[in-house]
Amino acid sequence: MVKFEQFIREHYATEVLNHLKNRDKEQFRELFLDLHRTNQMDIFIQLNQQLRSQLYSMVSGNEFADVFEGLDLAKQKQVIQELDERYIAAIFNTISTDEIADFLAELDPSEANKILNTIDNKRAIVIRELLSYPIETAGGIMAKEFVAVKATDKVSEVIDNLRFSAPNAETIYYLYVLDTEACLVGVLSLRDLIIAPAFETIEHIMSTDVISVTTEMDQEDVAKIMQKYDFLAMPVVTKKNVLTGIITIDDVMDIMEDEMSEDFDEFIGAKGGTDLNISSFEAAKKRAPWIVLLAFTGLLTGGIIDFFEAALEEVVLLAVFIPLIMDSAGNAGTQSLAVIVRAMATGSSEKKSIWQTIKREFGTGLILGVIVAIVLLILVPIVYGSFILALIVAASLFITLSFSTIFGGLVPIVINKLKLDPAIASGPFITTVNDVLGLFVYFTIASTFISYL
Amino acid sequence: MVKFEQFIREHYATEVLNHLKNRDKEQFRELFLDLHRTNQMDIFIQLNQQLRSQLYSMVSGNEFADVFEGLDLAKQKQVIQELDERYIAAIFNTISTDEIADFLAELDPSEANKILNTIDNKRAIVIRELLSYPIETAGGIMAKEFVAVKATDKVSEVIDNLRFSAPNAETIYYLYVLDTEACLVGVLSLRDLIIAPAFETIEHIMSTDVISVTTEMDQEDVAKIMQKYDFLAMPVVTKKNVLTGIITIDDVMDIMEDEMSEDFDEFIGAKGGTDLNISSFEAAKKRAPWIVLLAFTGLLTGGIIDFFEAALEEVVLLAVFIPLIMDSAGNAGTQSLAVIVRAMATGSSEKKSIWQTIKREFGTGLILGVIVAIVLLILVPIVYGSFILALIVAASLFITLSFSTIFGGLVPIVINKLKLDPAIASGPFITTVNDVLGLFVYFTIASTFISYL
Repeated sequence: MVKFEQFIREHYATEVLNHLKNRDKEQFRELFLDLHRTNQMDIFIQLNQQLRSQLYSMVSGNEFADVFEGLDLAKQKQVIQELDERYIAAIFNTISTDEIADFLAELDPSEANKILNTIDNKRAIVIRELLSYPIETAGGIMAKEFVAVKATDKVSEVIDNLRFSAPNAETIYYLYVLDTEACLVGVLSLRDLIIAPAFETIEHIMSTDVISVTTEMDQEDVAKIMQKYDFLAMPVVTKKNVLTGIITIDDVMDIMEDEMSEDFDEFIGAKGGTDLNISSFEAAKKRAPWIVLLAFTGLLTGGIIDFFEAALEEVVLLAVFIPLIMDSAGNAGTQSLAVIVRAMATGSSEKKSIWQTIKREFGTGLILGVIVAIVLLILVPIVYGSFILALIVAASLFITLSFSTIFGGLVPIVINKLKLDPAIASGPFITTVNDVLGLFVYFTIASTFISYL
Repeated sequence: MVKFEQFIREHYATEVLNHLKNRDKEQFRELFLDLHRTNQMDIFIQLNQQLRSQLYSMVSGNEFADVFEGLDLAKQKQVIQELDERYIAAIFNTISTDEIADFLAELDPSEANKILNTIDNKRAIVIRELLSYPIETAGGIMAKEFVAVKATDKVSEVIDNLRFSAPNAETIYYLYVLDTEACLVGVLSLRDLIIAPAFETIEHIMSTDVISVTTEMDQEDVAKIMQKYDFLAMPVVTKKNVLTGIITIDDVMDIMEDEMSEDFDEFIGAKGGTDLNISSFEAAKKRAPWIVLLAFTGLLTGGIIDFFEAALEEVVLLAVFIPLIMDSAGNAGTQSLAVIVRAMATGSSEKKSIWQTIKREFGTGLILGVIVAIVLLILVPIVYGSFILALIVAASLFITLSFSTIFGGLVPIVINKLKLDPAIASGPFITTVNDVLGLFVYFTIASTFISYL
């Protein structure tokens, strides 16, 4: 935000806080309740326990529900401990059922049940249904509060009815058209509805090309489809095409970010270990298997050097180029890996181009190899005074760069085909493979021409 | 999508294609125009030139505009070459001005001007304004078609007026309230409007806590704010708070993805070189500076080994552990780098926790160091028969792992403070620093205790 606006906002927040501290209920409510819920939340998380209970006494459970919904899980759990049963009931009878399900899924079953018992029966049934779907599927992230209409409804009727259904719906910007069996047969946006003449029937303005997902679809696939179609919300249907929920764009944006972080973690070989909210010990526990595995593979790579010990004993200077070979091989491979993983992540329509991409990467590797070889043929004689050594190093690096791009590209594809753990396609693994390859090529060439050194 | 649905979709696409090939204008139009624009596009990109001109003759420029908007830049340029001026004019007088500006910004000025001359004068002025903002700023990505109302307007009036303004607006789901100077003073959602009683005035239902951005804000910051507030659209104002445009969520989702790809590219040191749509040569050109730089740093790292050549000459076996030291140092550093970069990317409210995160990373490094040291103290004597060697390697790795987490964490922070090129904080750079550090520690310890080997 702009500096000036930031200043105003902080000034405002200070005023809100002062009213809270001075117990000026009227003024506090007037200022606080006019804030966007995200700004209310920013103020709330700064409060100590005393000021929090002061706040609970000044705003009702219904009014606080919005703030509660935006808090992270740890804070939500803390808040629940501080509230009495009636206040909790008021919160949970206000916020949307999918948010409640997400929250309850993280609690002990007994605690979850205690809260479920404070919730209206009708809502509790919906929440239990949501809890029955596996997490990270469409069913697990959908909301049940959608707006459904009939194909024979009139535009004016639907607009009138919206006044009543809108306050509780997750979104009113798409209306879903159901037949008598509750099957999804059409969709229209609120914009279509607003533009249409009042006397028109829904079936004449709805679109019948309805894009929907089923409850069991993986959330990452849901996110991809929503992004492909630029939807603000996506209908979720059962296998029999009965509309059962909707997923809105705000949930999908969070998923996109989480999934990218996950991919990224996998790529650097730190699955779950880069979470900001865990302790040193937990982070170490998650990363240790990887680091130990890397220590093993490091020893394995060292085995190559051990194998060529005779050559190394003869010309110790050969060891100087080990880092060069390893760095270049590892990096070129990782770049190709990144390219192919991304190519595979984009929609199926582009899948045919994966082989083209590998060919592209190999071409890139060849060109990079030539460039680096030339640089080395100039540099190495200057620094180490040997043109033969320069030839050995340059040839090794040329071969290594060309082939490490192929390895970086092929490994994720093979893993995908064989349905192995995709973590094997992580950066550290590719780097190890290419290190071994690079050092083997280098020492083979070096020991062949060692008599000329 | 579900397999079954996929099948239906392909079947439908085949039918659409057949009608196109057989020149059944009526049937083709009926099927094609009922499709979602993304599905129309999927069909269109499969067509050869002959079928494309067949399609142009069957659907009007207005009808084709939606498809055109969804195509990528290369395809759009190709299509423009195939169309006559009137058809082009029809397209550009239909699609939204921000899309046109994005397209024209990629053309030669003369070509852009030729197209601008076919566009209605009023729209052309708007497009010229949009083209005047730097790309990747709020001004560069915003649309000019927003719905503005007055605080004194009645709810029923506004709903009636929406019928006329809705077809051209970028979104109608937020209405912006302006004062007599066109300054932004309030906002309400279409949902608020629908729920409100018909006779209510806007000022009683609008929110005055308006979150807006100014035209010069970086697009990545805009995306963060929209995500923080879960907005579907964001108002853009001038420095004097005059409303001048809006940014919608679909644009922001694309930006989020692009920016993450950019960060990722930077992280693996391949800025722009992992683009799928460029040739081997172009990819090599973009990556070559990095690979050459890495070759240099690899030689630099090799210099450490050269420096300790005497020790190596005495005990060649020491070379065997070079890969182990390098791999472990590089990987631990990269993981910490990823953690800190992510901590810095999250909102400013969490900025105070960055130092805590570095402390966390150091703690993690210590624990990982202890674990790996123990593993090596067991493994190395078994494989290489020397407990002293095991002690040297284990001690080196313990020190290296502890400190490489600190380097990985500190480098991006220092770079940020000194406003240097953040690319220095990329994985390859951190890896090099940690390689040098690790090898230096290892050989120093090794040459100190070499007499015991």
